[in-house]
Amino acid sequence: MSATTARPPLANDCFLRACLRQSTPHTPLWLMRQAGRYLPEYNATRAKAGSFMGLATSPDFATEVTLQPLERYPLDAAILFSDILTVPDAMGLGLSFAQGEGPRFAHPLRDEAAVAALRVPDLDRLRYVFDAVAAIRRALVTTDAQGRRVGRVPLIGFSGSPWTLACYMVEGAGSDDYRLVKTMLYARPDLLTRILEINAQAVAAYLNAQIDAGAQAVMVFDSWGGVLADGAFQRFSLDYTRRVVAALKREADGQPVPVIVFTKGGGPWLQEIAAIGADVVGLDWTVNLGRARAQVGDRVALQGNLDPNVLFAPPEAVAREARAVLDSFGPPQRADGGWDGHVFNLGHGISQYTPPEHVAALVEAVHTHSRALRRGA
Amino acid sequence: MSATTARPPLANDCFLRACLRQSTPHTPLWLMRQAGRYLPEYNATRAKAGSFMGLATSPDFATEVTLQPLERYPLDAAILFSDILTVPDAMGLGLSFAQGEGPRFAHPLRDEAAVAALRVPDLDRLRYVFDAVAAIRRALVTTDAQGRRVGRVPLIGFSGSPWTLACYMVEGAGSDDYRLVKTMLYARPDLLTRILEINAQAVAAYLNAQIDAGAQAVMVFDSWGGVLADGAFQRFSLDYTRRVVAALKREADGQPVPVIVFTKGGGPWLQEIAAIGADVVGLDWTVNLGRARAQVGDRVALQGNLDPNVLFAPPEAVAREARAVLDSFGPPQRADGGWDGHVFNLGHGISQYTPPEHVAALVEAVHTHSRALRRGA
Repeated sequence: MSATTARPPLANDCFLRACLRQSTPHTPLWLMRQAGRYLPEYNATRAKAGSFMGLATSPDFATEVTLQPLERYPLDAAILFSDILTVPDAMGLGLSFAQGEGPRFAHPLRDEAAVAALRVPDLDRLRYVFDAVAAIRRALVTTDAQGRRVGRVPLIGFSGSPWTLACYMVEGAGSDDYRLVKTMLYARPDLLTRILEINAQAVAAYLNAQIDAGAQAVMVFDSWGGVLADGAFQRFSLDYTRRVVAALKREADGQPVPVIVFTKGGGPWLQEIAAIGADVVGLDWTVNLGRARAQVGDRVALQGNLDPNVLFAPPEAVAREARAVLDSFGPPQRADGGWDGHVFNLGHGISQYTPPEHVAALVEAVHTHSRALRRGA
Repeated sequence: MSATTARPPLANDCFLRACLRQSTPHTPLWLMRQAGRYLPEYNATRAKAGSFMGLATSPDFATEVTLQPLERYPLDAAILFSDILTVPDAMGLGLSFAQGEGPRFAHPLRDEAAVAALRVPDLDRLRYVFDAVAAIRRALVTTDAQGRRVGRVPLIGFSGSPWTLACYMVEGAGSDDYRLVKTMLYARPDLLTRILEINAQAVAAYLNAQIDAGAQAVMVFDSWGGVLADGAFQRFSLDYTRRVVAALKREADGQPVPVIVFTKGGGPWLQEIAAIGADVVGLDWTVNLGRARAQVGDRVALQGNLDPNVLFAPPEAVAREARAVLDSFGPPQRADGGWDGHVFNLGHGISQYTPPEHVAALVEAVHTHSRALRRGA
């Protein structure tokens, strides 16, 4: 994995260019959770692996499922197959996924002693993730029509945000009211702050190690930032995501490594999120993309924001709604000749019930219509 | 229930005045779901009634539980004890509440025939609600220190919004992804539109009948508007709420009847929601109250917006966070001498796990601090 020789140029760098607000021939797209249960081939690999964690902790299986959606669809980026909760698992909280249920921690942080004992984990315990990143980078290498070795598309690494990890670490599982972690927030902010400081250090080190291993962009999923009150969001979520972003390597192999921050439900705080230093801000479907571009498009690229439920509609409706999202952003080239950045995505992970052929219609519509938009059509 | 004699003046009209952006000596407050499972006396009444629907369909029991929180706390309004789903129940969908679960419909709208058969219900099937409203109004009458008959506080009536009702009517129960109703939205918008048109007519008639029976303000709960994509929200939720608001009686017994619209997660659309003709817009805790006031405070009063999870913290933390909400809105009297309106509330229903003594601390803090704010303290 020598940085000087092993990494050929990208055949398709649209995604990275859009993240950096550079010109692109079409609007790049990828889908959150694109390697997932809506694909029969994913389910077959998962059955071989025996469990979700068996899949995520095996670099071979992780590579296999990461590449599956790229075989079906001309997506513009790959994303590491993993889970946002690997870091607290490495901290010793004991992550598991019961059949048909969400994640669960055997040792949630429920008292002062547990919080006091929390440490930034030894990154060696996450070696399987970095090995997967390196293996996927190698597997993405192909030979182009001219016989040159090229990377097909960029590979995105990721982590949960400090706050989102803390939610699971305190609740011990998903929650619909976040009662335990919010009680800690309002009653014992000192304990929560300690967890968040450790999480911020751990997440930064984890993402930097993914970059060292070959991740060409990284994304911070603040999946539960949107459940916080105004004021609490800035203090307990955004400020720690900002620390992570500030600590990241922004270059590898002489290439910029864009940073994406996605806060589900973060619409009310768009301006503040756009100011923490990330290259790209992810948006959910409640946000008007044109309005968001007018507010922050001169500072960050935007990623999003189709409602994943659109994919249950027939292919022609999927195409219509995809075009509406592209039209809402508008042609990315501005009147002054410069470019604003748009990466097409869903506003949340793709549902396991999505018909795979509807995804094909989506990808086709995004590529075709975004080229037409650039021609002024 | 003669309108000319039976309805004495209000001892405390702070809530109505704040809704209408008139001067008030303190910021009025009430709590969504204030008559609920966090109160032991509520649970005792519910046990007597046998079931939630047994409670909601009995005017006597509904009156009893509506008044319970007023016995404990000096709240500034009462809200009818009922459920947002009474209207679809009256349409024949068969509402039930299994023990420990949310609402469920025996006959959800899953096909074209079911949608075609849907009708605005005969309001006689909702007579129990109007009887409860009238009974509660009578029960709120008391005698003041001067021996005059007075109403203690105003009574709020309510309904679910056309879209929120449609979610339950199509899904048949709560949902975490709204897959069925959103599939209908994107694949068969004609079916959804028919449901929404009928719901809008039914909700308007239902709220007008509550006003006739004695409701002094009415609230439309658009609990699930926030799950819609930008564009879809305006077309499938807000436009039908607007029709309801436009059809409402705005006066009874010679007094104005304020209309409150609350869209959970509606922060991104605040300006549009404030333009549909309601007197008051409810806000959840993600919205910055000061910023919302600057945007729309000259057109509507604002209601909200404490995170109900704050109530799990100790009383002093509850008081601190309540003061922060009041400070965010600021003194309601403007520099020009006019008044903006703020009704204090939670940003969602109170949790069943709330310690009742924390609610006492909240009410005390809101009344005390809002008086201090008016004195410039």
